[in-house]
Amino acid sequence: MTWFDNSIMSRRAEAKGLVTETYSMTEADQGKYHYVYGPYASPVLTVDPGAQISVETHDAFEGKIKDETDLPSQVLNVPYLNPQNGPIFVNGAEKGDCLAVYIKEIRPRGPQPVGTTCLIPEFGGLVGTGDTALLNAPLPERVKKLHVDAVTGVKWNDKITIPYEPFIGTIGTSPEIEAISSLQPDYYGGNMDLPDVAPGAVIYLPVNAPGGLLYLGDCHAAQGDGELCGVAVEHPTVTTIQVDLIKGWNFKWARLENENVIMTIGSSRPMEDASRIAYRELVRWMAADYGFEELDAYMLLTQVGRVRLGNMVDPKYTLGASISKKFLA
Amino acid sequence: MTWFDNSIMSRRAEAKGLVTETYSMTEADQGKYHYVYGPYASPVLTVDPGAQISVETHDAFEGKIKDETDLPSQVLNVPYLNPQNGPIFVNGAEKGDCLAVYIKEIRPRGPQPVGTTCLIPEFGGLVGTGDTALLNAPLPERVKKLHVDAVTGVKWNDKITIPYEPFIGTIGTSPEIEAISSLQPDYYGGNMDLPDVAPGAVIYLPVNAPGGLLYLGDCHAAQGDGELCGVAVEHPTVTTIQVDLIKGWNFKWARLENENVIMTIGSSRPMEDASRIAYRELVRWMAADYGFEELDAYMLLTQVGRVRLGNMVDPKYTLGASISKKFLA
Amino acid sequence: MTWFDNSIMSRRAEAKGLVTETYSMTEADQGKYHYVYGPYASPVLTVDPGAQISVETHDAFEGKIKDETDLPSQVLNVPYLNPQNGPIFVNGAEKGDCLAVYIKEIRPRGPQPVGTTCLIPEFGGLVGTGDTALLNAPLPERVKKLHVDAVTGVKWNDKITIPYEPFIGTIGTSPEIEAISSLQPDYYGGNMDLPDVAPGAVIYLPVNAPGGLLYLGDCHAAQGDGELCGVAVEHPTVTTIQVDLIKGWNFKWARLENENVIMTIGSSRPMEDASRIAYRELVRWMAADYGFEELDAYMLLTQVGRVRLGNMVDPKYTLGASISKKFLA
Amino acid sequence: MTWFDNSIMSRRAEAKGLVTETYSMTEADQGKYHYVYGPYASPVLTVDPGAQISVETHDAFEGKIKDETDLPSQVLNVPYLNPQNGPIFVNGAEKGDCLAVYIKEIRPRGPQPVGTTCLIPEFGGLVGTGDTALLNAPLPERVKKLHVDAVTGVKWNDKITIPYEPFIGTIGTSPEIEAISSLQPDYYGGNMDLPDVAPGAVIYLPVNAPGGLLYLGDCHAAQGDGELCGVAVEHPTVTTIQVDLIKGWNFKWARLENENVIMTIGSSRPMEDASRIAYRELVRWMAADYGFEELDAYMLLTQVGRVRLGNMVDPKYTLGASISKKFLA
Repeated sequence: MTWFDNSIMSRRAEAKGLVTETYSMTEADQGKYHYVYGPYASPVLTVDPGAQISVETHDAFEGKIKDETDLPSQVLNVPYLNPQNGPIFVNGAEKGDCLAVYIKEIRPRGPQPVGTTCLIPEFGGLVGTGDTALLNAPLPERVKKLHVDAVTGVKWNDKITIPYEPFIGTIGTSPEIEAISSLQPDYYGGNMDLPDVAPGAVIYLPVNAPGGLLYLGDCHAAQGDGELCGVAVEHPTVTTIQVDLIKGWNFKWARLENENVIMTIGSSRPMEDASRIAYRELVRWMAADYGFEELDAYMLLTQVGRVRLGNMVDPKYTLGASISKKFLA
Repeated sequence: MTWFDNSIMSRRAEAKGLVTETYSMTEADQGKYHYVYGPYASPVLTVDPGAQISVETHDAFEGKIKDETDLPSQVLNVPYLNPQNGPIFVNGAEKGDCLAVYIKEIRPRGPQPVGTTCLIPEFGGLVGTGDTALLNAPLPERVKKLHVDAVTGVKWNDKITIPYEPFIGTIGTSPEIEAISSLQPDYYGGNMDLPDVAPGAVIYLPVNAPGGLLYLGDCHAAQGDGELCGVAVEHPTVTTIQVDLIKGWNFKWARLENENVIMTIGSSRPMEDASRIAYRELVRWMAADYGFEELDAYMLLTQVGRVRLGNMVDPKYTLGASISKKFLA
Repeated sequence: MTWFDNSIMSRRAEAKGLVTETYSMTEADQGKYHYVYGPYASPVLTVDPGAQISVETHDAFEGKIKDETDLPSQVLNVPYLNPQNGPIFVNGAEKGDCLAVYIKEIRPRGPQPVGTTCLIPEFGGLVGTGDTALLNAPLPERVKKLHVDAVTGVKWNDKITIPYEPFIGTIGTSPEIEAISSLQPDYYGGNMDLPDVAPGAVIYLPVNAPGGLLYLGDCHAAQGDGELCGVAVEHPTVTTIQVDLIKGWNFKWARLENENVIMTIGSSRPMEDASRIAYRELVRWMAADYGFEELDAYMLLTQVGRVRLGNMVDPKYTLGASISKKFLA
Repeated sequence: MTWFDNSIMSRRAEAKGLVTETYSMTEADQGKYHYVYGPYASPVLTVDPGAQISVETHDAFEGKIKDETDLPSQVLNVPYLNPQNGPIFVNGAEKGDCLAVYIKEIRPRGPQPVGTTCLIPEFGGLVGTGDTALLNAPLPERVKKLHVDAVTGVKWNDKITIPYEPFIGTIGTSPEIEAISSLQPDYYGGNMDLPDVAPGAVIYLPVNAPGGLLYLGDCHAAQGDGELCGVAVEHPTVTTIQVDLIKGWNFKWARLENENVIMTIGSSRPMEDASRIAYRELVRWMAADYGFEELDAYMLLTQVGRVRLGNMVDPKYTLGASISKKFLA
């Protein structure tokens, strides 16, 4: 028995965390990838709770950055960035429910060097951008192609190798009536770029549109806190998820659980608002489901809460706030 | 001859600022109002450059707040707020062009009291919100219905009457692939809540989708800088605009011109980013069209630039940066 | 009779807004200028309420930028910037009181070109700074010396002349135990760079240390909203103020009154916090002194409040929120 | 041999990381505690590089919150909060040098319950504050006194015990001419509330005033990321530090080293600026001392950088950015 057998997904979801059917979603199955999270696209797959799905994700550039001499500003075409698989329609999912997505495996796919990072003009955490709009000249563009191996890691240069610690950069459900760029994270998930959204974790996503309409893509082979220059080690993958449905678990912002913690995820600007969202959601979760009085939860998190900075580069910044399960017993 | 005869619209647009046809768009013509700015709705009207259109706008609550005993949290249904007329398809408009919209008149319509302001939980400039997420208890809800007269003004109470200074709170074009809540302002316009978008002004909107797809609504009878509690004097109107097309005038963020100034409009969070956007756009406009060297424009704006705070309550804050035309001669 | 005869200063201050004694404070009288607002410097002048004082202020660079070939980064010596006259000890002023300072006149002094603006590396509203810390290369340095005439204005170039609209960039009282850079604005005033602090206005400053300890300097011949590049038209002046004392008028943040408005001033980061401070103080002032119920003031300011952006470049940003006196009658 | 023998302090400081003399600084030795970081106080101790000092620190409330019925708003007296030991004058320290402070031990002192946390009106991460100035009613005040034991931990309630993981909440050097509240973190250290400033770490502080003038206090028995409600488990301690001097190591922002990482610390508002500062300093450090090309460091930190949120409640927010030493070899 593993922690997952006692997870919220296993205890509360329709299929009890069990696999009831399996699917694969190849590039060909997907056909056209999507660049917005919204209800206006037709589902490419319809599943029941309990479906396991292996998904061929593209990298964030849809493979257009092919070598180190490419200029991102020339080969990329805004807003057609961060291509997403999906949407996946989950039978029975209605507004006010929760999609539970157990992340089972992420494997690199395609010929080496399969990883890409780069500097893109007016994008990144230490440069002027479209919002932090400045007159300074942009940094030079630069592309770095990287050999990524699930066992030996990401080879940065002759001296430095980075462990392969893959996660899903962008995953979420559809808003009710909006269609929002897949570059943006928000209450429904989206481009959170949060390294905790990794194999072994369950992400809980609010359902706002019929079927939930799950999208995902943008897997990273490695990423530091904040995704500083805006581009992690982007790579195409086969990503395997298991999707389940928790009826009537109604909350606004995406949540996460793994063996050790429960986590709430906030995305906003300025960054302190993302942090406030995440921590307030965590206070409320502790009060609703773990028997805490709200102000006691607030004071306890002051002593034991943990914060993970996902991104400091996207249209909204993302932070996860968590508490160890050992304080929830 | 008025300033308008020498406006950018009159000089550069397809119909030269002349009215070539007139339309009215009643509530019945509109049918279903819209709550997102996007390309997924069918046009309700297709016009040529030079069209004058009288539009029956709803107030931001679609008339659902009927009297002072109503509770906003009960009668309103998120995200179905801030109903918009449109979209209006302008023949010939393509990505990279500019829609010029001359605002000719705004008149209140409907039975008195035609104006509404109110306090809505977790919304406003001096309260915790969904983003500035806090544990403090919300303020009480409160509704104030107001008699609005185009001549005598808005009667606040027995002692205070506010001048009728109407403007369009929400107006803009469609993003290319996104569909964004009409509560949000952004590069394409939207819910800017900027009092300069008033009769006598021309707003220049970037075209991102075929036909431009113009939306508008949310007219205010009066509003202070920042729209402090989040709800101006909202009222249904007949709003008359004249729409024209400037081919190849390609810029990212909405702009405005009136008799006295040219203005650029930025929307973002935190507020300083909105200001940076607006001022950088103004620097670039002065350099592109008025013969300034960029750094000289930057230094001159330091001495003569003006800033108008539109809203400090919406999903993005809006500021307009302007320079008097007397410095551009 | 002028508005001033009915000002708060005239009605409530110890000397009733009357001049009871006159002083001049020349460069020689001042001797060493100050670079912090704090209680650790000895007063250079001690006065009674009702004192009129003519002060020889330096420009923000203490005259070190002498011509257009100077490099600011070489001739300036951080933190010895923005030299201040004072402190002036006001007899009877104690913590919890208010200093009222009526600004009577500002005149340029010294040989032409008496005005200076410039671009300083990593300082300004549209560049990366020490706080918005980026990797972009800084803009080039640039100095512009300007002929400033109180009658004919500031000559920008052959085509552009800017009206002479002088104000005091930096004025305030001492904190109780802190000594804070004269580059920073805060609750006690300081480097607000707010154009409303001009001849004809009264600024009300909270007293936090015995005698109040008034400092001032950094007069600007002209400035746009936000002081965009960080350097207005800086110039040395003779500035005449009249100082009075309001016992027991206890508030935290600097306030202002002129013929038309009452204004509260907030300084913070991010900019929305400066706006929140200013507006909350205004709500409270209206409730305390003008008979408004607090939420009614909040809702009324939503319709008629005005915001002036002082600076968007200093260690804290400054905004003034005001309401026309016609709504206070 | 431990990692410390190969630390920057051991390699580069005057006393080579060796203890050359020992001192104790009791409450009686200290006499009056300080509430600002500045150059205007007389040193209470003058030492040579290599001094080991055992310091009796007060808790952040100077012991004034004695039991759970006390109201913080009544027993505390702003700005006399967060009392600091020091200043300690280090012989030979001049502007442009670095003080290295090795944190050797923190032990609770005084009678149980020795720990205090509480809710203070208008202070904390999930409430309106003096800067995020709102109209919502404050939360109720609440005090929690806690039994703190260095071995068994902090007893929260019958079910929850928190490990004793003490660190120094406030430590730093004096600014050159400013005297800044000990509640504020900044470039010189101060109230960073960063849990990494713990026994086993070396903090490197820039010297701005002669002798460096080291202050410290405000030790926490435990704290979560962000110090959410603003008050960690505050407790009086005996804290033992070893002070050394690195001549000519000139940088602006406080840095840290422990067995596993090097870390830079940024403090600012909004939070993204704190993060930018920390990461830019880390890029520059890697370029200056570890042989990285600057943009390569920027791209590498994108993949392996780590961020720790110190506080989200103080006048400036604090984040630490770090890189594992394994990537620096």
